[in-house]
Amino acid sequence: VTTLCIAGLGLMGGSLALALRQAAAGDDDAPSAFAPERIVGVTRNPRTLAAALAAGAIDAGTTDLAEGVSAADVVVLATPVRAILRSLPEVGRAAKPGAVVLDMGSSKQEICAAMAALPAGVQPVGGHPMCGKEVAGFDAADAGLYRGRVFVLCPLERTAPEALAQAERLAAAVGARTLVMDPATHDRAVAAISHLPYAASVALVNAVDARGDAAAWRLAASGFRDTTRIAACDVEMMLDTLLTNRRAVLAWLDAYAGELDALRRALADEDEAALRAHLDRARARRANHVFP
Amino acid sequence: VTTLCIAGLGLMGGSLALALRQAAAGDDDAPSAFAPERIVGVTRNPRTLAAALAAGAIDAGTTDLAEGVSAADVVVLATPVRAILRSLPEVGRAAKPGAVVLDMGSSKQEICAAMAALPAGVQPVGGHPMCGKEVAGFDAADAGLYRGRVFVLCPLERTAPEALAQAERLAAAVGARTLVMDPATHDRAVAAISHLPYAASVALVNAVDARGDAAAWRLAASGFRDTTRIAACDVEMMLDTLLTNRRAVLAWLDAYAGELDALRRALADEDEAALRAHLDRARARRANHVFP
Repeated sequence: VTTLCIAGLGLMGGSLALALRQAAAGDDDAPSAFAPERIVGVTRNPRTLAAALAAGAIDAGTTDLAEGVSAADVVVLATPVRAILRSLPEVGRAAKPGAVVLDMGSSKQEICAAMAALPAGVQPVGGHPMCGKEVAGFDAADAGLYRGRVFVLCPLERTAPEALAQAERLAAAVGARTLVMDPATHDRAVAAISHLPYAASVALVNAVDARGDAAAWRLAASGFRDTTRIAACDVEMMLDTLLTNRRAVLAWLDAYAGELDALRRALADEDEAALRAHLDRARARRANHVFP
Repeated sequence: VTTLCIAGLGLMGGSLALALRQAAAGDDDAPSAFAPERIVGVTRNPRTLAAALAAGAIDAGTTDLAEGVSAADVVVLATPVRAILRSLPEVGRAAKPGAVVLDMGSSKQEICAAMAALPAGVQPVGGHPMCGKEVAGFDAADAGLYRGRVFVLCPLERTAPEALAQAERLAAAVGARTLVMDPATHDRAVAAISHLPYAASVALVNAVDARGDAAAWRLAASGFRDTTRIAACDVEMMLDTLLTNRRAVLAWLDAYAGELDALRRALADEDEAALRAHLDRARARRANHVFP
């Protein structure tokens, strides 16, 4: 790879640039298999551009997407999902023949469908690194963000094996583990373990907020802190994510409402055996799961 | 205080013993105002007793509650709520005249009502330190557990000011901040920020588990990890807590179901403005809250 273009220099794009810099500067015996000579950053925000340049995360920057994309061998789209969808036609027109176009959006079906319409010379790969945070923006970028995390890749039917391999090398260079998956499986899975928990967190905060219980906020400790952490996630990103993964999220919300209602009934009926069964099942499942 | 009796040597009771030992051993200029000469531990589990003795957390131990309580100036009940309720009559019969009886149960109305029936010579104080964890047992005990945490105290009408002051000194000795509150306000507040989030966590794990989505568990990252952490809490403790705080928990579960349903409707209708309002409200409230 000679030139990498990263469109979007927030938490994900900024961290990718910093992580690749760190990999390039590393004194590993085995040099990274993905080492761009040049990183070009694209963002609409001139202050972000200046910050990324000052931090040495990028070699050059532009607010013009087509300009940034035109010289790149690999293009990474690191904006919220609907911004990716809006930018794909322009990326397709500007990209060099043979360029790999990888995205990092949180839902994959709509993006992979749109990628299928890219010009034949472009090599699209859907991607989603599992490393969200409740902080956003280049200021929150962190060279270690991808280390040890799962990086889902969704190649299209038209994607050449070498393009997929390129995306895998990029993920490996920043310390992530790749997992190839089809977009529908991905979207159902992240709706369960990311979008549903986000909705649950948002509703928790809003329920407590709506009833204005001052004592509750004074007593809030680590349990409430952790169950609601992701309610502070970037709203633009999550709005795009929920709206582009609507069907899967609605299905999980229904399953969740059913579980909550069953638990509520057991408590209302003082059915200790049923209540215990709910708590035992969750405890056993959760305590035995090993997170990456 | 000459002798302190701690009934229950799990996470809470064990940590209390270790924290008081650490305070006594501290080379602070100001010695702790609560420094028992002798700590007696009570637990039904002989292995726990042996572990607490071996760790130097207690000076003496017994599996007999009345024996442990009889010599104590201060008795701390550190078992699940219903075990506290069951033990109060025996504690009342065995306690020395003038002994302070403080509990650390997670709900306060039933316990404080039962404490009102203790013999007149006993000084009851309801208590609840806000420092739950998803681990349990003496092995998880930690001398730093109470440091910087809120310790709610619920004195009864009959509680003498000196007995409340004694409980306040105990909390201060282990680094906690006391907050005096009536039992109903406490129970409503903890239902909101502890028992509801626990139910939400349990239902999240069970919803994902019930639909058997293997890909979901493979992708589960920090968002799912944190929103479901407390689903791994000790089941006996939480069962007692939910059942003895049933009315408040049911009210919050209803408020929560309402918030979830409103969010679901906004998403189902693709009502972006309404959805954004939900997310914005939660984000602003959560991001601005400072946890202790």
